[in-house]
This record gives sequence, C-alpha cells and structure tokens, in this order.
Amino acid sequence: MSTDSDFLDFIHKGYEQHLPHLSIDCAVFGFHENQLRLLLTKVIRINQWSLPGGFIRREESVDMAAQRILRERTGLDNIYLEQFKVFGSADRNNTPDTKKIVKSVDNNITDDNWLLQRMVSMGYYALVDIAKVTPTPDTLSEECRWWDLTTLPPLLFDHSEIVKDALKALRQHLANKPIGFNLLPEKFTMTELRRLYETILGRTIDRGNFEKKILKLGILDRLDEVKSNVTYKAPFLYKFNTVKYQELLETDAGFGF
Amino acid sequence: MSTDSDFLDFIHKGYEQHLPHLSIDCAVFGFHENQLRLLLTKVIRINQWSLPGGFIRREESVDMAAQRILRERTGLDNIYLEQFKVFGSADRNNTPDTKKIVKSVDNNITDDNWLLQRMVSMGYYALVDIAKVTPTPDTLSEECRWWDLTTLPPLLFDHSEIVKDALKALRQHLANKPIGFNLLPEKFTMTELRRLYETILGRTIDRGNFEKKILKLGILDRLDEVKSNVTYKAPFLYKFNTVKYQELLETDAGFGF
Repeated sequence: MSTDSDFLDFIHKGYEQHLPHLSIDCAVFGFHENQLRLLLTKVIRINQWSLPGGFIRREESVDMAAQRILRERTGLDNIYLEQFKVFGSADRNNTPDTKKIVKSVDNNITDDNWLLQRMVSMGYYALVDIAKVTPTPDTLSEECRWWDLTTLPPLLFDHSEIVKDALKALRQHLANKPIGFNLLPEKFTMTELRRLYETILGRTIDRGNFEKKILKLGILDRLDEVKSNVTYKAPFLYKFNTVKYQELLETDAGFGF
Repeated sequence: MSTDSDFLDFIHKGYEQHLPHLSIDCAVFGFHENQLRLLLTKVIRINQWSLPGGFIRREESVDMAAQRILRERTGLDNIYLEQFKVFGSADRNNTPDTKKIVKSVDNNITDDNWLLQRMVSMGYYALVDIAKVTPTPDTLSEECRWWDLTTLPPLLFDHSEIVKDALKALRQHLANKPIGFNLLPEKFTMTELRRLYETILGRTIDRGNFEKKILKLGILDRLDEVKSNVTYKAPFLYKFNTVKYQELLETDAGFGF
C-alpha cells in the first residue's frame, strides 16, 4: 500500500486477503541509555499515535503475521515476540476515529465495511536492539518513531491499556523468558544487566543480592575478558549461556522451590 | 441447541450471532485426591474427545464468552479463568473431522460454510473445585467428564498441544497468580498446599524449603485452628490473605529481587 488508490482497494477488498474481526497490535520495546523506549506510529488524518499493528493474511499463522508486520515497521527479521494477551472487548475499536480515516478516502463507505467492524486484537510485545531498527511508517501512518516510555502521548483505542499490560507481562516474564538476551549486546557487564532489570521493574535493586540471585540461576558465563574503554576498575564481561537458559525456561523457573 | 434442527440452524446461520474465524478452547483443571484432572467433552458422530469450547457472540467480549461457555459446561459462575495463549496456525482445524460432523447433519453444506473455515482459538485455562462442578455436554458433544491428566485420550485438532501449553502456563503462573485460591478449600494445611504445588509441578518439593519460601511471601494467614479428624498431631490451618495476595500480583512477584 502506498497511494490513496491502494488504500481504497484495501478498504473495499482487504477482507479477501485478511481474516475479518482479527487484528494484531505490538508493543515494541527498545533499551537505550538505561531507558525503555516504545515504537509508535502516527495515524494518518486523525493526528493520533498508535501501536504498530496490522491484520492476519488468510494463509499465514497469527505469529507469522506479527513477524511480518514488525518486519515492515522495523526492517528486522526474527524479532523476539511474545503474544501476551488478547484484547477482546466488544466496543474496543468502536470509535469515530476509524470511520474518520476510512471515510476520508471514500465518504460512501458503509458501516458494514470490514474495517469498521469489531476487531479482536492479539497483543504482542517485542524486544529489540534500538540500534538495529529503522522505524518505517506504513500507508496508514505518517510517522514512525521511538518514544520514551515515561512521556507517551495519548494513544488510539485501548492502546494505552495494551502498553500497560505489555509492561506488566514483561515484568512478570523477567524470571522465565529470555528478556535480557534481546535488549543487551552479546557481551555485557553485571551492572549493565542490573540496570536493564531496574529499568523494566521501575525501581532500584540491591547490587549484591542481584548478583547472587542471577548467578545462582546458572545462566550466565563469565568471560575471560573485561570491559575496555573504562577509566575505573574494568568489570568482567558476561554472556548468556543459551543452553542453560533454554533448560531453565522449560522448568518452573519463577518459583524456584 | 438440543436437536438436529437447532444444530442445522447453527451451521447455516451461526455466524449471524457469532464472530467468524474466532473460537475459544478451555483447559479446565480440577484438583482431586492429590491429582490434577481435566474436563473433556466427547464430540458427537466422530467418537473423539476435545476441550470444552465455543464461539464469541457479536455483542460479548472474548472473556465474557469464555465465562459463558464454561458456565454452560460446569454450572459454575465466576470461574477463575486465565487467557494464556492464542492458537493461530493457518491449518489447525483443517481436518476431515469438522466436515464429518457438519455434513452428517446436512450433506449439501458447502466448504465456504463458516464452521468449516479457519478458526483462530483463544486458549484459556480454568481452575475449579471439582466438588462444585456438574459436567454438562452441549449439543455438539455426547458426554462431558473428568479425566486424570496422566491418562488423557487423543484429542481433537491441536487440543493436546493446548493442554500441554496450559499446564506450562499454570506452572509458570504458580509464582504470580492466585492458583492455590481456586483449587483448595478456604482453609487448608501447609501439607495440602504443598501437595497441590507438587502435583502441578509434577515433582516433590522439599518440605522445609517450601514452608519457608511460601511464608516469606506474606500471603498466608495462620488460623488459631487446627485440622480436625486427624489421628496424628493436628496441623494448623491457613487461609490466603486476599489483600496481600492482590498486592503481590501487582508486583514482580516471580523474580523476588
């Protein structure tokens, strides 16, 4: 899609290629200078920010659709994605905004159009390395960029709730999903890992306690390498041990009895 | 629905009341004599067991639909339900079984019928007190009953995968969802709570370690009451402290830094 004519075609016939009543919304988190950031798109014609999202093609799985949508918005393949919740209120997208966008292209479009119907949205969160992302708007948006999580604008539909729930899921998954893998460089210091956890949890963590607990999980390999270009005593670098991390994910990592 | 004529009407016109392409499947767990049990329905005409499930009415939220479906199968209101995953493979219900059921009622039904289309299923798990449930089949099933989790029959479509994933979610949620609340009586002993956790995790847990960790969470109130009708030294009874439990759920309970 790139012109009004393409958009018109999508409005009129998009349901032939896509499943009706189903949408995908993604909270894409990046980590930059000890801050969590969120990727947002500015929707055309209504001057409103929203989560990157899209629809499911009839021949693709829901997970494949999410990967495709995010590849289109970020330029990245194989993004770490977690489908964390379904947003299924009966009236969640029943707002004048959708009509305004659709009717701005063709005022004769009737209320039974597939895009004006109820959409049940599959909520995903994604974790990416900001440095690797090229934010790219689609035809339904005029801008795509990173926002600090602490200063988000008002969002379309229930997208603020989706962000809140995504962050809650992210916090709860810290114990048993490979969160750190996807937001840190391959080699990192203990302090960098702790800063990431502190940022996600929104509070400080006792340094000694953190180190003890995280090492006890057995998922980190300490390298025979120290961080360079630092003026103070050079700290050791660590890597995640993917095999042990995977083993831990298969068990009840969170409870630790 | 209760007759072939009702079923026929549902096949032909069900999409008028329900959203197409969307279904709900529920893994209903009960706890009985230190065993986890699962509620299954036997699908008519194909002699196959499946999870209780259904469709979403156009005016109800997805969560309300899940509550309604389970109320119809169990007789219970306000069941503890967690929507834990979406099952969205493109070919997940593209099997001869659906056609067999539908065509057994009307052989002229064409492949574009809404029930023969791709269904994206919202997976829920439910935790119930077995003693309170009255298993009730619907028109699409000829039997509804409890099965031991260790001896399940082969299941329809991807329902075995749904059960496996539900159990995995249940294990991971042990740390930060009110699992115990819904599977135990109001008052319970420390041993009963530990047995529940052992059953869900599928392994034994060190007694002293469990007691120490669970008490440290601060979510249990010890009552000034001991269990009666026991011949050995009577153990104390505990209750969940709902306020503290709720507070814990709002935080990063799982990681505990």
